[in-house]
Amino acid sequence: MKKLRLFTPGPAMVPEEVMLAMAYPIDHHRTAAFRAMLKEVTENLQYLFGTTATCLTVTGSGTAVAESAIVSCLPPGHKALVCRAGKFGERWGKICDAFDIANTKYELDWGHGFKPEGVAKMLDEDSDIDTVIVTHSETSTAAVSDVEGIAKLARERDLLLIVDGITAVGAIPVKMDEWGIDVLITGSQKAMMLPPGLGFVAVSDRAWKRIDSGKMPAFYGNLKAYRKSMSNFDTPYTPANVMIRGAQVVLQRIREEGAESIWKRTASYAEATRVAATAIGFKVFATDPVDSVTALIVPDGIDEPALRKTMRQKHGMQIAGGQDHIKGKVIRIGHMGYLDRFDALSVISAIEMTLAEMGHKFELGSGVAAAQRVLAEA
Amino acid sequence: MKKLRLFTPGPAMVPEEVMLAMAYPIDHHRTAAFRAMLKEVTENLQYLFGTTATCLTVTGSGTAVAESAIVSCLPPGHKALVCRAGKFGERWGKICDAFDIANTKYELDWGHGFKPEGVAKMLDEDSDIDTVIVTHSETSTAAVSDVEGIAKLARERDLLLIVDGITAVGAIPVKMDEWGIDVLITGSQKAMMLPPGLGFVAVSDRAWKRIDSGKMPAFYGNLKAYRKSMSNFDTPYTPANVMIRGAQVVLQRIREEGAESIWKRTASYAEATRVAATAIGFKVFATDPVDSVTALIVPDGIDEPALRKTMRQKHGMQIAGGQDHIKGKVIRIGHMGYLDRFDALSVISAIEMTLAEMGHKFELGSGVAAAQRVLAEA
Repeated sequence: MKKLRLFTPGPAMVPEEVMLAMAYPIDHHRTAAFRAMLKEVTENLQYLFGTTATCLTVTGSGTAVAESAIVSCLPPGHKALVCRAGKFGERWGKICDAFDIANTKYELDWGHGFKPEGVAKMLDEDSDIDTVIVTHSETSTAAVSDVEGIAKLARERDLLLIVDGITAVGAIPVKMDEWGIDVLITGSQKAMMLPPGLGFVAVSDRAWKRIDSGKMPAFYGNLKAYRKSMSNFDTPYTPANVMIRGAQVVLQRIREEGAESIWKRTASYAEATRVAATAIGFKVFATDPVDSVTALIVPDGIDEPALRKTMRQKHGMQIAGGQDHIKGKVIRIGHMGYLDRFDALSVISAIEMTLAEMGHKFELGSGVAAAQRVLAEA
Repeated sequence: MKKLRLFTPGPAMVPEEVMLAMAYPIDHHRTAAFRAMLKEVTENLQYLFGTTATCLTVTGSGTAVAESAIVSCLPPGHKALVCRAGKFGERWGKICDAFDIANTKYELDWGHGFKPEGVAKMLDEDSDIDTVIVTHSETSTAAVSDVEGIAKLARERDLLLIVDGITAVGAIPVKMDEWGIDVLITGSQKAMMLPPGLGFVAVSDRAWKRIDSGKMPAFYGNLKAYRKSMSNFDTPYTPANVMIRGAQVVLQRIREEGAESIWKRTASYAEATRVAATAIGFKVFATDPVDSVTALIVPDGIDEPALRKTMRQKHGMQIAGGQDHIKGKVIRIGHMGYLDRFDALSVISAIEMTLAEMGHKFELGSGVAAAQRVLAEA
């Protein structure tokens, strides 16, 4: 007997009832039934994003909707500060470059999160910057940035703040209106507990004012078209309506549990994983660890690809490796999606059993016991 | 007892086994299993497109992949002839305009298909045009263009030919390599018998040469990134992997039936529908009717929105209306997707029963009988 368990930081596991809801006979999207569904999804997205702002649903990967937001908000005459300390921060900079958007790249070492003090210093050096792009949870390094603090700064200095919330929204506290975020993005396959294929973006009135002030080369990604259709709970182009049905079901579930409860639960899995991993010889990679995903430096002498291969092939557990220069050095374990505490313990058990087979010296069970203590107290 | 039957020209009905395959436990996409799946899908797409060219799978609507193709193939210094005789042809022109791509709009009345003679005349008038964009099956008018003839012209004059095959590929004969098409696009929710959410594009060597010769503002839609990843049967951004699993199952089914058999079967539904509809007082809208979808002018005195409302609410049949200036004048019936001949007869039965209720004078059953004769002979 072997089950597949996904502990990747996206795609994450999806509740069975969501997958089965998506298997219902397909319907058309230019119907009252679809509009009612998209209305409900939109209202529940607003709850999850902590906003009364327009929430738009785009058929595409998280990168598609991030591109839409960045391109729409930065017509000629504006300049972005792109906070980059990992693969995704880097990607948002590449999008700026691809569209010839003026930008300054603010680089930190991988594993660090961005703080308002650092951002303020960069802004002080260049008064042309009027937009900040920051990744709340940098999935590639499992580091968190202080978005609340950066949003406060953005409000003080009247900057537009675009937040990549792709492994943040629904996993860790993100409060768009309370904090003052202008544009908040997420993807379906993370804490939203859906398959990949949808992106979501909430756009504040401040951001709409910016978007309406200029023109950028965009058609499919032009957020104005989505806003226009959304006034009637419709979409400008054929949506992945089966996924939106899944979103309807999953958001009911999320709303029933409550965002605060999910944040606490996710944080307990992260803390349990960090404590357990430290007990058996790993080190937490991030200086500022996030609670939605954990990156762990593998112990000396352990072959990282072989570890992941055994995890998958022998134990049915899919975890992620490192990307770019941390490839082969870290493993990454997601705490998002359809996971309960026993799943969180199972991945630690499987890592222990894999390490034992690989000849690593440690006390078998000590990681699981440490994690159990954390979870029992949570 | 009421069943929902979709006769819209996309989304079309999806086989149950495809929906259920999509409900399997979700897996990660950076795995050998995913790469094997995408390899099989890609090979079967090549079969369906009639090409040995690279076939790329993009997460997004058909419009997303059409934008990718148009933008990638038209860097500065090139000029497109956009053939427009309906909503979708118009959309491709709007994409050119949104990206400041030089283009001439070749307009025909809605319902007409494009012929090589007309295209040649337009080309004769402007030697700057080096690219032709044509919609093979214009979904909004149900008209077909002579893509084989236009491709011959493109080859003679060394032009790049981009074909929107969105309600053509898998429904009517489209032979990319034999005819000499450079770029061929389709979407998942039509003859591919999948839900909406994936776009597919095949790119010839000639088109790659063009794409590699310049730079356009594109990131998510930049086809070069898809080509690079596809060398390892991977995708540059997180794909809608559940949909790709559906594509694997449906393409096995398509390949088993065979493209030629599907084309003939689809044509028989279209012919049966045209004959039946004419027998009960409709007129075929298109001068050059396509076999994947039929647009019918409703008889005088019949309230078109009321007809569609009864079809949906009383009979569970979803058909489409007209768009823009033909709204309220025509109905559109799709012949693509998971439909058998009895479905094709059912929609005619339901239209007859609806018309009878609305007081239209005709011989009840005469449309169905006419359709039966066509299908019996097919």
